[in-house]
Amino acid sequence: MPSSLIRGKYILTAAGDAGGIATLLDAAVYQEDGLIVDVGPYQHLRARYSADAELGGPNYSIIPGLVNSHHHGRGVTTLQMGTCDDCLEMWILAGWGRRPYDHYLMTLYTALNMLESGTTTVMYNHPQTAAATLKEDVEAVLRGFLDAGMRVAFSSYLRNQNRVVYDEDGAFLSGLPTDLADDVRRYLAVSHMDDDEYFAFTDDMHREYHDHPSGKVRVLLSPANVQWNSDEFLLRVKERAASLQTGIHMHLVESPYQKDYGIRTWGMTPVEHLQELEFLGPEASFAHAVWLTERDIELLADSGATVCHNASSNLRLKNGIAPVNPMLEAGVNVAMGTDSTAINDDDDLLQEMRLVNKLHRQPGLESPAITSEQVLAMATTNAAAPTGFGDVIGRLEPGRRADMVLIRLDGLEDPYLDGDVPPVETIIGRAKSRDISSVIVDGEALIQNGQHQRISKSDVARELREQLALPVDAGTLATRRMANRLTPYVESFYRSHRPRMENPHYVYNSRN
Amino acid sequence: MPSSLIRGKYILTAAGDAGGIATLLDAAVYQEDGLIVDVGPYQHLRARYSADAELGGPNYSIIPGLVNSHHHGRGVTTLQMGTCDDCLEMWILAGWGRRPYDHYLMTLYTALNMLESGTTTVMYNHPQTAAATLKEDVEAVLRGFLDAGMRVAFSSYLRNQNRVVYDEDGAFLSGLPTDLADDVRRYLAVSHMDDDEYFAFTDDMHREYHDHPSGKVRVLLSPANVQWNSDEFLLRVKERAASLQTGIHMHLVESPYQKDYGIRTWGMTPVEHLQELEFLGPEASFAHAVWLTERDIELLADSGATVCHNASSNLRLKNGIAPVNPMLEAGVNVAMGTDSTAINDDDDLLQEMRLVNKLHRQPGLESPAITSEQVLAMATTNAAAPTGFGDVIGRLEPGRRADMVLIRLDGLEDPYLDGDVPPVETIIGRAKSRDISSVIVDGEALIQNGQHQRISKSDVARELREQLALPVDAGTLATRRMANRLTPYVESFYRSHRPRMENPHYVYNSRN
Repeated sequence: MPSSLIRGKYILTAAGDAGGIATLLDAAVYQEDGLIVDVGPYQHLRARYSADAELGGPNYSIIPGLVNSHHHGRGVTTLQMGTCDDCLEMWILAGWGRRPYDHYLMTLYTALNMLESGTTTVMYNHPQTAAATLKEDVEAVLRGFLDAGMRVAFSSYLRNQNRVVYDEDGAFLSGLPTDLADDVRRYLAVSHMDDDEYFAFTDDMHREYHDHPSGKVRVLLSPANVQWNSDEFLLRVKERAASLQTGIHMHLVESPYQKDYGIRTWGMTPVEHLQELEFLGPEASFAHAVWLTERDIELLADSGATVCHNASSNLRLKNGIAPVNPMLEAGVNVAMGTDSTAINDDDDLLQEMRLVNKLHRQPGLESPAITSEQVLAMATTNAAAPTGFGDVIGRLEPGRRADMVLIRLDGLEDPYLDGDVPPVETIIGRAKSRDISSVIVDGEALIQNGQHQRISKSDVARELREQLALPVDAGTLATRRMANRLTPYVESFYRSHRPRMENPHYVYNSRN
Repeated sequence: MPSSLIRGKYILTAAGDAGGIATLLDAAVYQEDGLIVDVGPYQHLRARYSADAELGGPNYSIIPGLVNSHHHGRGVTTLQMGTCDDCLEMWILAGWGRRPYDHYLMTLYTALNMLESGTTTVMYNHPQTAAATLKEDVEAVLRGFLDAGMRVAFSSYLRNQNRVVYDEDGAFLSGLPTDLADDVRRYLAVSHMDDDEYFAFTDDMHREYHDHPSGKVRVLLSPANVQWNSDEFLLRVKERAASLQTGIHMHLVESPYQKDYGIRTWGMTPVEHLQELEFLGPEASFAHAVWLTERDIELLADSGATVCHNASSNLRLKNGIAPVNPMLEAGVNVAMGTDSTAINDDDDLLQEMRLVNKLHRQPGLESPAITSEQVLAMATTNAAAPTGFGDVIGRLEPGRRADMVLIRLDGLEDPYLDGDVPPVETIIGRAKSRDISSVIVDGEALIQNGQHQRISKSDVARELREQLALPVDAGTLATRRMANRLTPYVESFYRSHRPRMENPHYVYNSRN
């Protein structure tokens, strides 16, 4: 791997948790073999090192590679696959009937989308696909990420209870017509995995990939969510993560119904329940975490856990707006991700940063508003923390891996930009993926002039187009019919479990 | 003007107020001299008419030209000019020190931006620039829009009271150091206009432009906002609008402080006050309208007035989220616009439609969520209503003007799109301005392949770049120093007028 000197008018080396940002002017990063050796004034570095190549220039801003901290790898989106946005619980059910896809191609496609928009590391959470092909599926996924050159914190989630609604499967199924209940049981059996099988599978994955020679893979454990997992399973995950010295990634209080499940099941919030189980800790990262009480926020802050904020997804699936400002204020490590349902139905974390930046601006002079520095920290340092790459990515500092994004300034500063606007405001406020010229992972410029240098996106798209042009298979069509039949029963369940929604953290308008 | 046949795989002819949408498959619009003559199946129209030109094709969706219902014409944005986002009241003050610009070039630039992203009509609201040059300034603005070929509903606002904070100027200035108060008085005098002068000016504008031979201009009246205008002025506006048979466009309860002004001044909300004045009516359109009570919403619905929703601006300037769902439910005519502060700091109404679509999805199964059809109606039929072009634009129907947008489907449907996804979901969910190939106003394809056919954007940008590269003038620098000195006094005023913010229409998270 050749060495290189990467030059920028501005280098935003590190977005701090507390909201500060270190910005160097007319500076450069010098990297050898993918490792950052030095960061400093361009002229100094140019004199000190003889690099094989020079990238960037005086018309670029350079930021650390972005980290998408929650993603399910769906480059061809759920909307494209026919599932229109809906209330999470109904949307999940509708998704049962989505057609299967080629995991390798799908991962390549989403990885290219992500890289083009500046994401160099992804926290990928594999959905519970058919048990018989799970190993094969996830190996195809990892091959996709590795072929694209992305860094990936991999996990595969398991739901071991309450798989139809947030209640015991037997009880719920007993209320259905017998033939429908049988169909649902058969459908669930396909992706069923015993707890023991899950741990054997994740042990395998950890052994085979966690220390992958590329250095680009970490393997984490993943319960799906508190209502979807038994306490026994959660405790085994906690123990196994400790012995493997790896992280835990899971969904948490994504919807008001999930919080309501905690209240009626344990008489406390899901976060309080996790606290009681002694499950919380710095190795855990929780996607969504919208329906957090003030006490929940304190518990999360005290535990050192990460919350992965998914602003677009939370809006699209009718889950609300996570209380990010109170979390930041309390000291929670808040990361962000697109959850494969970003606002523009793509994988664009730059656009997502902007949405987060605008969304958390509480009305009035004295109310908090998230800063651009905090948003950049959420997508870099904060998001790096739970991936297992926390010490090696997220900042442009000597000793860390050379993952970075080069943003052309002409689109941002033309025809004029006042000299007093801080570079971070320009990036968070105005940069679009079309302004990204190069994306570097481990010192390798994977994206140049907006194009991946090793893989032809049009070839990947063509193969996907051909595969998806085939008629939907009979099994999928049958599952769709079953899901449609099931819909009114599921709807009726949630109508009878109306969650309390009151006393919000954010008051964005007023009835009186 | 040649006739043309414009063909689409889908033609979304009319987004209804009630949320429905009329979609034709493999259809066409036939126009002559800018007037829509027929809309129907492509093969029928092709056989029936011999058009001079054919546009579009089986790989396009066609929608009515978008209407941006609130805009101040700032193509080089306030951020680019050095005013970072802040709480509205502080942001307005910081804006006092923005450098002046060439109104013609600025309007051309913003018009090109808008056209490229599908906006064919704009409700342009001129800020209160120097009285001595106002006529000249607004004529430059109108020349800009007309040269770009856009349709414009023009108004120029007047603030005739409370120009520093939401309180009587004399009282507020008396609390300042004498020299600062004198500076502020001199600053305000520059843009001061007597009420009589304002009405003489708007009468002139109306006479000269309302029936402009292009048919592309309407001239409306514009009080700035209730706290900025005396009741006497508001009543004269109402009367004058009636005699000129034109519309009224103004800001309203944009911030919680503006609502608070009503409570402490009249013991009622600003909307209730307007109701008491008998000011409300179908000729009035109100930008922002975030801090509406349930009663306010009823009053607006009953009056037939329009609310122009500015989602991005309301977030960026810390004003909250307007209660759009309750307004739609109550039957208010809700339009939308970007207010020159769109989420991506550009003039992209497609992106703004998407934000609106995601933002108003209240949590839980039974809570309302705005639909894609409603969002398209907000940016077409609903937004057309208050412009004075309500009967001639907004829908693709015989007898209306041929204003429309051609969107290439390949970017939206590739590599796959499930056949069951409604075309309107694909556009609102996925279309980006780069997917827009042609934009037609009055039958003329102003934009083709993303480029304006009459005006070179790079020339406009170059001229702006040259002008804005000059040093900031001494007068502007002095105003900046004055605004900086004034800042703590203004801040202290608002800190002592803390508005009540409680009992929201939307509950997006919960503290307990």
